[in-house]
Amino acid sequence: MDYKIFPLGDVTLQSGEVLPNAFLAYQTYGTLNADKSNAIVYPTAFGDQHYQNEWLIGPGMALDPEKYFIIVPNLFGNGLSSSPSNTPAPYDRGRFPKVTIFDNVSFQHRLITEQFGIEKIALVTGWSLGAIQTFQWAASYPDMVERIAPFCGTAKTWPHTYVFLEGVKAPLISSTEWANGEYETQPIVSMRAIGRVYAGWGFSQAFYREQSYQPLGHDSLEQFLSGFWENNFLGIDANNLLSMLWTGQYADISANYLYKGDFKKALQSIRAKAVVMPGTTDLYFTPEDSKYETEQIPNATFQPIDSIWGHFAGRGIHNEDTKFINNQLQNLLALS
Amino acid sequence: MDYKIFPLGDVTLQSGEVLPNAFLAYQTYGTLNADKSNAIVYPTAFGDQHYQNEWLIGPGMALDPEKYFIIVPNLFGNGLSSSPSNTPAPYDRGRFPKVTIFDNVSFQHRLITEQFGIEKIALVTGWSLGAIQTFQWAASYPDMVERIAPFCGTAKTWPHTYVFLEGVKAPLISSTEWANGEYETQPIVSMRAIGRVYAGWGFSQAFYREQSYQPLGHDSLEQFLSGFWENNFLGIDANNLLSMLWTGQYADISANYLYKGDFKKALQSIRAKAVVMPGTTDLYFTPEDSKYETEQIPNATFQPIDSIWGHFAGRGIHNEDTKFINNQLQNLLALS
Repeated sequence: MDYKIFPLGDVTLQSGEVLPNAFLAYQTYGTLNADKSNAIVYPTAFGDQHYQNEWLIGPGMALDPEKYFIIVPNLFGNGLSSSPSNTPAPYDRGRFPKVTIFDNVSFQHRLITEQFGIEKIALVTGWSLGAIQTFQWAASYPDMVERIAPFCGTAKTWPHTYVFLEGVKAPLISSTEWANGEYETQPIVSMRAIGRVYAGWGFSQAFYREQSYQPLGHDSLEQFLSGFWENNFLGIDANNLLSMLWTGQYADISANYLYKGDFKKALQSIRAKAVVMPGTTDLYFTPEDSKYETEQIPNATFQPIDSIWGHFAGRGIHNEDTKFINNQLQNLLALS
Repeated sequence: MDYKIFPLGDVTLQSGEVLPNAFLAYQTYGTLNADKSNAIVYPTAFGDQHYQNEWLIGPGMALDPEKYFIIVPNLFGNGLSSSPSNTPAPYDRGRFPKVTIFDNVSFQHRLITEQFGIEKIALVTGWSLGAIQTFQWAASYPDMVERIAPFCGTAKTWPHTYVFLEGVKAPLISSTEWANGEYETQPIVSMRAIGRVYAGWGFSQAFYREQSYQPLGHDSLEQFLSGFWENNFLGIDANNLLSMLWTGQYADISANYLYKGDFKKALQSIRAKAVVMPGTTDLYFTPEDSKYETEQIPNATFQPIDSIWGHFAGRGIHNEDTKFINNQLQNLLALS
């Protein structure tokens, strides 16, 4: 196993439900230094596992394991941390409880403090739903987080993104093969359909106009739709997908006892130095929403990723965008 | 029956297939004048019938039946013109042949010339797929069309729109209830799912952010998703939907013997005075694509509808947008 498990015990979720024997899967890169000042937390996105975060980590990069201790916690529901697919009855499958972003970050906080004794985090960063966790870290633990760099993600799921996600889950929950979550084999026809629905949202109009999927090794549009999009979703357990999707649809850093739904207050409470990086052509985590949020955060700069790669400007598959993000991280980490 | 039928006889389609006893359903408003100079053609959009065009027609409006003879031809596949749902075996259901935009406009041309003896058309206008037919009219019959006013639609389906439509059909063609088009009762679970997929595309991010569905009489987002979006698709036969969707996915005014795929040439051949009106926040017929096309047309002006209503800025459900479109039509019709 190329990752570690932090046992959480029985956890009480925001919903009030108790999930017995919950656990957080994580991977680390580099070594924690003596004064525990070099920790970076880099949570995973919707549908991803820590493997998908590794493009941003490496020698000579901002997230350099020779310099930093980088912890990548896996999102609940992603198949490695507690999920519908790996939790025994009576909390398996569709009976797996709803887990919020706030819950996720609380568990990650326990890992950071109980397992490693870390008191200050040099940086929290993440893409998409990882960006929302990044904002949540800074809002939940303002005294602990020194810097944040959320990219292609907002501090809550704005209504249009909620609607887009309704469309993403529609082919699955309307199918018979899903069987209300009680499928014996994965509902692959529906998961392929989800890939097709997602395709238009993931990349921008200009990306498709300019056939930018060709440098990714896909000769034709049809090949890209099946080889990239359908395949991407075939690797995910259907109930896990729905679990993460719920987490995404209801994400809001103020939806908790600390801020009681006061979104502005949650943003204004962030003390970390922040660099907020939306993709200029992101169709769901829009630059407009990001700009509004950035303006509420006391110590934040707005640095859009100027790219036709839409939401996937933050996925590490387009060199220019990767360079931009890496440079911003480098600059942010250099600030004392 | 509140509309008329123009029998086309056996028609040979662009595909080479022959559809026997084809017919074009249409409605007219106003009276053709003596010199046949007051004709306006206003084709229907994807999923629509002539009823859905009537918001733009009325006394005192640009499309005034007391002044003009307005002909609204129904798109093939829409349930009134020849469609999977009203064509007998062996061309019923999924066996209904593929009909292009070029085919549709050829049939409409026969109606205009054979039935009414019209030689010049004062204006062709239309929304969405109706806009593509508008462009096609001007490219197929450049000497006949004096003015065009396409709104929220382009002269071809650009790749991203093709991809978005792949997502729209995905829940249906992946379902068992669709039964490859051989359903006995309408596959309503999938049609509802299609409504959910479409919801994010139809209106802009800002529309949802500002809850602009409330003035439409929908108190909550969920009510809007079911009451507006799902219901919209429940009124459409599933095979008809797929037929129109194919027409939309492969729309291109240059895909015919006249222009042999030379899209620029097709646009440059348009002689009509043109006013092109994209919605500024339309997520699939984008202002960028519209602007490019407008620049190729010799006698065209670019007049974006400044609106957060996305694609539905052209649907006649938001007064300000309707006024803007109506004013542009008024100005265009005043040009001699």
